[in-house]
Amino acid sequence: MSGNSFGEIFRITTFGESHGPALGVIIDGVPAGIRIDENFIQAELDRRRPGQSSVCTMRNEADQVEILSGVFEGITTGTSIGMVIRNTDQRSRDYGNLATTFRPGHADFGYWKKYGIRDYRGGGRSSGRETAARVAAGAVAKLFLKESGVDIHAHALEIGGIRGTKVNFDEVERNIVRAADPMVVDAMISTIRAAQKVMDSVGGVVECRVTGVPAGWGEPVFDKLDAVLAHAVMSLGGIKGIEFGDGFAAVRRRGSENNDSMVPEESFKSNHAGGILGGLSTGAEIIFRAAVKPTSSIAAEQDTVDIEGNAVKLSVHGRHDPCLVPRMVPVIEAMTALVLADMALRQRSARR
Amino acid sequence: MSGNSFGEIFRITTFGESHGPALGVIIDGVPAGIRIDENFIQAELDRRRPGQSSVCTMRNEADQVEILSGVFEGITTGTSIGMVIRNTDQRSRDYGNLATTFRPGHADFGYWKKYGIRDYRGGGRSSGRETAARVAAGAVAKLFLKESGVDIHAHALEIGGIRGTKVNFDEVERNIVRAADPMVVDAMISTIRAAQKVMDSVGGVVECRVTGVPAGWGEPVFDKLDAVLAHAVMSLGGIKGIEFGDGFAAVRRRGSENNDSMVPEESFKSNHAGGILGGLSTGAEIIFRAAVKPTSSIAAEQDTVDIEGNAVKLSVHGRHDPCLVPRMVPVIEAMTALVLADMALRQRSARR
Amino acid sequence: MSGNSFGEIFRITTFGESHGPALGVIIDGVPAGIRIDENFIQAELDRRRPGQSSVCTMRNEADQVEILSGVFEGITTGTSIGMVIRNTDQRSRDYGNLATTFRPGHADFGYWKKYGIRDYRGGGRSSGRETAARVAAGAVAKLFLKESGVDIHAHALEIGGIRGTKVNFDEVERNIVRAADPMVVDAMISTIRAAQKVMDSVGGVVECRVTGVPAGWGEPVFDKLDAVLAHAVMSLGGIKGIEFGDGFAAVRRRGSENNDSMVPEESFKSNHAGGILGGLSTGAEIIFRAAVKPTSSIAAEQDTVDIEGNAVKLSVHGRHDPCLVPRMVPVIEAMTALVLADMALRQRSARR
Amino acid sequence: MSGNSFGEIFRITTFGESHGPALGVIIDGVPAGIRIDENFIQAELDRRRPGQSSVCTMRNEADQVEILSGVFEGITTGTSIGMVIRNTDQRSRDYGNLATTFRPGHADFGYWKKYGIRDYRGGGRSSGRETAARVAAGAVAKLFLKESGVDIHAHALEIGGIRGTKVNFDEVERNIVRAADPMVVDAMISTIRAAQKVMDSVGGVVECRVTGVPAGWGEPVFDKLDAVLAHAVMSLGGIKGIEFGDGFAAVRRRGSENNDSMVPEESFKSNHAGGILGGLSTGAEIIFRAAVKPTSSIAAEQDTVDIEGNAVKLSVHGRHDPCLVPRMVPVIEAMTALVLADMALRQRSARR
Repeated sequence: MSGNSFGEIFRITTFGESHGPALGVIIDGVPAGIRIDENFIQAELDRRRPGQSSVCTMRNEADQVEILSGVFEGITTGTSIGMVIRNTDQRSRDYGNLATTFRPGHADFGYWKKYGIRDYRGGGRSSGRETAARVAAGAVAKLFLKESGVDIHAHALEIGGIRGTKVNFDEVERNIVRAADPMVVDAMISTIRAAQKVMDSVGGVVECRVTGVPAGWGEPVFDKLDAVLAHAVMSLGGIKGIEFGDGFAAVRRRGSENNDSMVPEESFKSNHAGGILGGLSTGAEIIFRAAVKPTSSIAAEQDTVDIEGNAVKLSVHGRHDPCLVPRMVPVIEAMTALVLADMALRQRSARR
Repeated sequence: MSGNSFGEIFRITTFGESHGPALGVIIDGVPAGIRIDENFIQAELDRRRPGQSSVCTMRNEADQVEILSGVFEGITTGTSIGMVIRNTDQRSRDYGNLATTFRPGHADFGYWKKYGIRDYRGGGRSSGRETAARVAAGAVAKLFLKESGVDIHAHALEIGGIRGTKVNFDEVERNIVRAADPMVVDAMISTIRAAQKVMDSVGGVVECRVTGVPAGWGEPVFDKLDAVLAHAVMSLGGIKGIEFGDGFAAVRRRGSENNDSMVPEESFKSNHAGGILGGLSTGAEIIFRAAVKPTSSIAAEQDTVDIEGNAVKLSVHGRHDPCLVPRMVPVIEAMTALVLADMALRQRSARR
Repeated sequence: MSGNSFGEIFRITTFGESHGPALGVIIDGVPAGIRIDENFIQAELDRRRPGQSSVCTMRNEADQVEILSGVFEGITTGTSIGMVIRNTDQRSRDYGNLATTFRPGHADFGYWKKYGIRDYRGGGRSSGRETAARVAAGAVAKLFLKESGVDIHAHALEIGGIRGTKVNFDEVERNIVRAADPMVVDAMISTIRAAQKVMDSVGGVVECRVTGVPAGWGEPVFDKLDAVLAHAVMSLGGIKGIEFGDGFAAVRRRGSENNDSMVPEESFKSNHAGGILGGLSTGAEIIFRAAVKPTSSIAAEQDTVDIEGNAVKLSVHGRHDPCLVPRMVPVIEAMTALVLADMALRQRSARR
Repeated sequence: MSGNSFGEIFRITTFGESHGPALGVIIDGVPAGIRIDENFIQAELDRRRPGQSSVCTMRNEADQVEILSGVFEGITTGTSIGMVIRNTDQRSRDYGNLATTFRPGHADFGYWKKYGIRDYRGGGRSSGRETAARVAAGAVAKLFLKESGVDIHAHALEIGGIRGTKVNFDEVERNIVRAADPMVVDAMISTIRAAQKVMDSVGGVVECRVTGVPAGWGEPVFDKLDAVLAHAVMSLGGIKGIEFGDGFAAVRRRGSENNDSMVPEESFKSNHAGGILGGLSTGAEIIFRAAVKPTSSIAAEQDTVDIEGNAVKLSVHGRHDPCLVPRMVPVIEAMTALVLADMALRQRSARR
């Protein structure tokens, strides 16, 4: 109800503030009998963690996950899985006027109007730091999905106006921006550094592709597969849009061009639809792209107001990502995994 | 769970197939004491109904709504509101090979793989006809929101590549494509007719704008206001993407250009964010755009397969919209109203 | 949220007031492929309908159910099932002081305080008449469960202090009080008539027994099988208590007497537990009993107050059951079926 | 879905096994602005903790709670509250045949059939130890309710056949059985010790009373206040029945005797109903009683089977409560508080 849970059967509930003692998640509905590789969960967290490269925030967090329940001798038991990640580099410091000033582009003003109280330290609950809990849970979802042959890969399609044209997923973890096209890596890094130098930030596009989803996943009407994926991905801070298959480009086509003709063996001549029709998977590759805005936290001076309504100048110093895209890649994969794990289980009730 | 419900407190559950006896909806969670204007509900349905103009399907349905409960002497009582809309023009006819053939661009194949059984008459549950139930419920949501000063308006921003540049909501109901810019109406109609002539279809973009939402609506983390709106709108058949504020255009800006500076009196210098930051409303106008694909049902012959896996040719004759955009306008308004009505009630638990 | 839905996967949402145009239900989550016998649904409604015998209300309702969706050629399609039952004998009449007076033992005062508005005609939504929608849905649940060999039978164990000692379910539909012990039928009828003669009412106990449930149904912790059955049964108007197995009698035993020893072949030496341990079914017969209070609507004059707070005298004339037990039997079966159908589907996600 | 969550708006999700590293809970939906007294939460946990007296298990756990989120400078912020309680006395030991044997009266067999895997150490998730998480959350609910004047008190009404006749809540924490009638304390203690001496256990009845709930709380139809309280209380291990007001005794009364006449000033002449009519609170004291079975874990030898289906003898040595009632008192209060906190928030959407 208050929006800290996601999913119906495979369902996560998270907690944690940027500068509180810990973040955490409970995953309910993980089927019994799944082998849990803790190293894999940690590796996924490492892909997301701050301080991993020169193009992301310098906050230093080990993001060490501890599993507190639901796993016995390395196997899930069917009971809820509790996981906690301690904050270790929250740095008690003087927050100066951040305690009383609304950062432009942030949720600060909304929280203040909604709750009348605000944990201003590092953005509190609205910090991107909460996605660590999502990634830990998403790793468990990936372990479950892997057994059914579902593979999820995201990559930095575009950063600061530089857009890749090839998709080779083997490349993604070989470069610090997580591009799937090695030809654009240097340009992407340069554009980030150029912005950083002037205390500014850049945006980009993350593309995600999923193979191995059989036809028929998703729930007709309100919980269409693309609708729930959109919900999942748009629930990440900094995402301003999402499109499936050809997306916004499809609106300028005619039906005869845009329809994907079926051919024998349950296949399609094309995949303009991005693997989803009428809200159900078609068995073709699922493809979507998310628009990532330029980071709102910038060191350059900006105009804003304080909680008394006075106009003030603000420079958000501290440790921020000059571009959210590289660390957003594993986070979007995690949200996708959570949606698909849930849909896999929902599918079990489709037939008698 | 099976996805025929939407919303948490203000929550709808719908039923109905294209060619079954009736469609309907139960709205649970409507607060007591709201005046229900049945004429308004009917008027909203009339904006969506087939046969309303020369650029939409010729299926002729009165879409007469009957309220069966929850309203006493014109006022809501707090109990669940049941509404039914009878199908009157479902035309018992020979479905020919539609019973065994998967229409390209449709949910047919997915339904077959999901359930192993399919009501093929007019698409059954996957027909856009189910949105009538959404519009009836959305009208009740609008009546509730109107009391708080919330105003929701959508319009045809783009059809078949023709894009409007002005937004005057007074114009929308004066033209059959529901454009807000009168200068592009004729071109939009022409582009639809040109496609129709060659048994083809066109797509477009619907934009929706909401005023009167106070700052703080939406739920942090998973149920961000934009995430839930994306879920709502993407759950409509034919929508391939959604973007908020500047959306995909924002990814090529720098943070300093994209941030909306705050100024005294709880206002903003610009509205790149589209009225939502960190998933919470900011008090500024909420703006989003949805990509509507060209209608999949076209009379031109297409390649596809049947349920035995044989390659077949298919021409989808019948009564189809050559462009979904004009009738999508009230439907997107309805989904937006349902989300906001729910968020208005969820907001009531935010503070002690 | 507002409590007109029940169940998680196999989930019903109902609407309808006693004197409104109709009652209805949407069942979401019914798996595809189940044969729907409409005659069986109607027969279940006939077991609940008013006017069926001399020991129940004389209101005359055919309670004819119409299926509006979700069933195609007699088979469920996996989409939501809408059903409507028209009210035909709601008798427009003068409600006299019932419109402004709170009937003792009824929800009238609570509704007034909760909503500030009240459909006073026949109790509105709080009328037992709403259970018709539950019975229609429960019949669908029974059809689903029958395929897995689950059998649900309730009976009038006690009425007006007369308690049966034998349980023969073949007897239940052969007598108007629905006793499973033919030896007590006459006494039960007499005790009801004696109360009726002095414009009074009697209570009783309904017992329900379920066979064919495999071990392991129910969800540990909050959704234990007995907890959800208690929720379901206690949600019926007039139920004041529920006990499982030996229930309240068990509290005076020692652990060594109360534990049911297991014996090979997954069986138990005794069944004090009533077929549920730790919230999960054991495979033994599920047994519970519900306390049914004497009907609150009585023609005898009672003290009460009106909405202005004035003391008034009230005689509730009209058409009331002198004892709720006989018609409660099929209603409790319906609620039990709804719980078990849901648990059957939830069980599908227990293992990988 | 998998039943580790409870509540709709004020909603808890718990995790943790008896012998795992920790138990925990996330409370979502706590309104912002509530003062959190950590000492009070700890004091509630101390009322439930093992090892507190000579009539309960000797397992020694400090049950120290750590708040990880959602509270800033002692005040709730509206974000989810994470709390963890470490297990400190889980004693790594040889479980002998407990690993492969089903304890009579326990969930062991059900878990095995449900999941095919089982954390047998101390009952794993099915251990009563999970209620620590409920009590921690219930304490937060009590802090919220206290601000509205709602007071919840439970007591040991009956133990081993000894039943109190007076209710003085000041007495409850003055004796180790938590009786509200000081005259029966010694007899209750004696009956427990007598059972303990012969390696057996006794049952009892917990009564709970709530004052300060205004008329109108609860949701008509499926989420009646008594239905949800029954769900909450029956979800505790060892509860076999629940009754409200006069409960099972009411079934032998006539309507004229059982109805509570209203008198001016929104009051009632009697309270047979236990403060709830038609599922809504009436403003009168809410009263219910729960049947607590004799502890299933007893040291005396019992017949059972192992996972291979072989008949075996079992003595459950270890640290068990000879009577669950004294520690059940704060747990039932906690579940009651959780229900009422949720209903208080649900009530906020009842009117426009």
